[in-house]
Amino acid sequence: MSAFSSRWVEPPACVTELPEGGLANGFRAGGAAAGIKPSGDPDVALLVCSEPDAVSAARFTRSGAPAAPVVLCRSRCRLDALAAVVVNSGNANAATGARGLEDAARMQGAAAMAAGVSEDRVAVASTGVIGVPLPMHGMMKGILAARGKLAPDGDRDFWRAIATTDAFEKLLSLEVALPAGIVRISAQAKGAGMIQPGFATLLCFVQTDAVLAAETAELLLGVCVKRSFERISVDGQLSTNDAALLMASGASGVIVEPESDDELRFGEALDYALRRLALQIVGDGEGAARTGRVHVHGGHEQTVERVARAIANSPLVKAALNGGDPNWGRIAQAVGAAIPGPGPLPFDIWIEGVHVCAGGVAVPHDVAELTAAVSRDEVEYVVGLPGEGVETEVFFSDLSHEYVRINAEYTT
Amino acid sequence: MSAFSSRWVEPPACVTELPEGGLANGFRAGGAAAGIKPSGDPDVALLVCSEPDAVSAARFTRSGAPAAPVVLCRSRCRLDALAAVVVNSGNANAATGARGLEDAARMQGAAAMAAGVSEDRVAVASTGVIGVPLPMHGMMKGILAARGKLAPDGDRDFWRAIATTDAFEKLLSLEVALPAGIVRISAQAKGAGMIQPGFATLLCFVQTDAVLAAETAELLLGVCVKRSFERISVDGQLSTNDAALLMASGASGVIVEPESDDELRFGEALDYALRRLALQIVGDGEGAARTGRVHVHGGHEQTVERVARAIANSPLVKAALNGGDPNWGRIAQAVGAAIPGPGPLPFDIWIEGVHVCAGGVAVPHDVAELTAAVSRDEVEYVVGLPGEGVETEVFFSDLSHEYVRINAEYTT
Repeated sequence: MSAFSSRWVEPPACVTELPEGGLANGFRAGGAAAGIKPSGDPDVALLVCSEPDAVSAARFTRSGAPAAPVVLCRSRCRLDALAAVVVNSGNANAATGARGLEDAARMQGAAAMAAGVSEDRVAVASTGVIGVPLPMHGMMKGILAARGKLAPDGDRDFWRAIATTDAFEKLLSLEVALPAGIVRISAQAKGAGMIQPGFATLLCFVQTDAVLAAETAELLLGVCVKRSFERISVDGQLSTNDAALLMASGASGVIVEPESDDELRFGEALDYALRRLALQIVGDGEGAARTGRVHVHGGHEQTVERVARAIANSPLVKAALNGGDPNWGRIAQAVGAAIPGPGPLPFDIWIEGVHVCAGGVAVPHDVAELTAAVSRDEVEYVVGLPGEGVETEVFFSDLSHEYVRINAEYTT
Repeated sequence: MSAFSSRWVEPPACVTELPEGGLANGFRAGGAAAGIKPSGDPDVALLVCSEPDAVSAARFTRSGAPAAPVVLCRSRCRLDALAAVVVNSGNANAATGARGLEDAARMQGAAAMAAGVSEDRVAVASTGVIGVPLPMHGMMKGILAARGKLAPDGDRDFWRAIATTDAFEKLLSLEVALPAGIVRISAQAKGAGMIQPGFATLLCFVQTDAVLAAETAELLLGVCVKRSFERISVDGQLSTNDAALLMASGASGVIVEPESDDELRFGEALDYALRRLALQIVGDGEGAARTGRVHVHGGHEQTVERVARAIANSPLVKAALNGGDPNWGRIAQAVGAAIPGPGPLPFDIWIEGVHVCAGGVAVPHDVAELTAAVSRDEVEYVVGLPGEGVETEVFFSDLSHEYVRINAEYTT
């Protein structure tokens, strides 16, 4: 388990890290090589819940060009009662048409047999290159081999088989002390946004042994995804394959009732888990050296969102973050671009707490001090718009030579 | 005058290039050093029309954080009757508050004296670093010195004084054969979108000696800016200072009547001039090695625009263009991201005429042939959306190591 530390994500008091890892009770996972990756690395992963009444919730990409497994999950799965997941890496099974849907259905069928559950309780996910038919010849053998390795501590093997070019592991095992008792949350995520070569993407699988109603799982996953994966940007590129699944086995016997203190604490723990994985994905952005956080307050909901995204996705801001350049004019530019109008807008900008722009006008400040501050691993930008309004945040990675190298030199 | 060649912009039959350069009749221009650039290079420029009945039209940035000169022009100029322009480079006079407005007004006043016209007929433009007060001590002397150099062939001096880090000249002098007689169009542009260090920006000044009504100038500039500067993207960043001005001296005595053949041909020539300068700006994008053109047809107006911008501004597409990588999955991703929905959308993609995706599904093609095609200076991407619909295009530069180097290592 890789060390995680960020001033922006602190574990709540009810959470204890389990350094030895492992899945939440009621789950087993494994990985194997199906021959998709030319390297021979593991590329097919299986996750199975042994409890009969498992519930689940899911979120998928909003892309209008969703990959076959996303289409399959939406149309042929009971997304509130998933009991197994099969994943392949190295091929996105996207832009593959009818054949792609058939291949995804064959994966689903094989995993259903391996897990001993009905097909509509098996989710399918893929990640890798777009527009290439999935090599199916080794797939059935691979799924069988992964079944043979299913283990309660198979989370690391599972992660390895879903990863592509991730630079470090993104998984966690947490113990959560609820008033009603102790439960576990385990989670595995891969990807660095949409910036991986071959167009890999974000996948996140979360398991808990708490007893959750399907509606509770749906509610909690929805809220927590909004505060984590929907608040990050590596390069502003929405993927064809994004998927996040929460599965609850109920094996702990600890019931999380709606609108209880248990739900509140469980939600805090899930929120921590997902925000932590989201920040790890930003930190593992291709070539990323620094992570930025932009916080925008004031104005209206659409306005703060537009301003935050304009800053997080500006190549000028991202390159300045990479170079440790305190050039706040690029923030001012992005604000103005996000809010067209006659202006000038009386906005404020703080970088690492230094007030550099007040009411739209430059504020004299200690440039040497600011330059030192923006050279650290994490840099915080705060923008104030007129009015009390609302607030939002986006975490983003920088734009580096390494990003260009990987994405220019990579060949399909 | 730098050589210009692109398959996407051909001169119309009525246009002849004037290789010796020079301004349209009735205009004089000059440049001088006012001490804004530490290098001592020319940084203040003056353009004056000697005809009493000059008409004009203007377009400015839509940024909500417009620079002081943009605010001044909008509020204190007769934009349909401009007779002079004063420009400084090296400082954007943006995010400078009341002092910035005063400084812009002082530039306007000095240029009005130098040109012998009323203040409200003088446009002011600035380009350079944001958030730093304009050093005014040398400005008056600089404007006087530029006045002393005013000449009918001063277009190159004028250009040099408005340029910042432009790698090559962007100016032209054209003779246009209208049914009613011969007129000239001259134009000077600077900038490479918003990607220059110090946040320089797009400025374009166009002169003609045709006799135009102010309404005709307004109409033609509006149409031609929409087809040129509004169809390019270096890095998707809207600037605080963008300005494009068309001034007509009437010195040729050739009258361009509304809805005449003369207007049609003059419009073609102006369109050619502005598209040519726009493509030069894309080609001079920081570190740019290749220029892309994306053409989207079908769908609805908002949809084609969103898809074209999503492709032109995708760092994945831009990095692939830089590396000569025929990875069309990145185009498919951008299309899907631009049109959220359950999908999958049945879109088509052609790269350099090679059909790589039909109805949303990969088409087998000769990868070696395509790889050779995308390694040339200009690469064309065509996307077909369902329906007859509409069409649009965007020209864009690639994303290179040099872009990151300049924008990461640059320090304010």
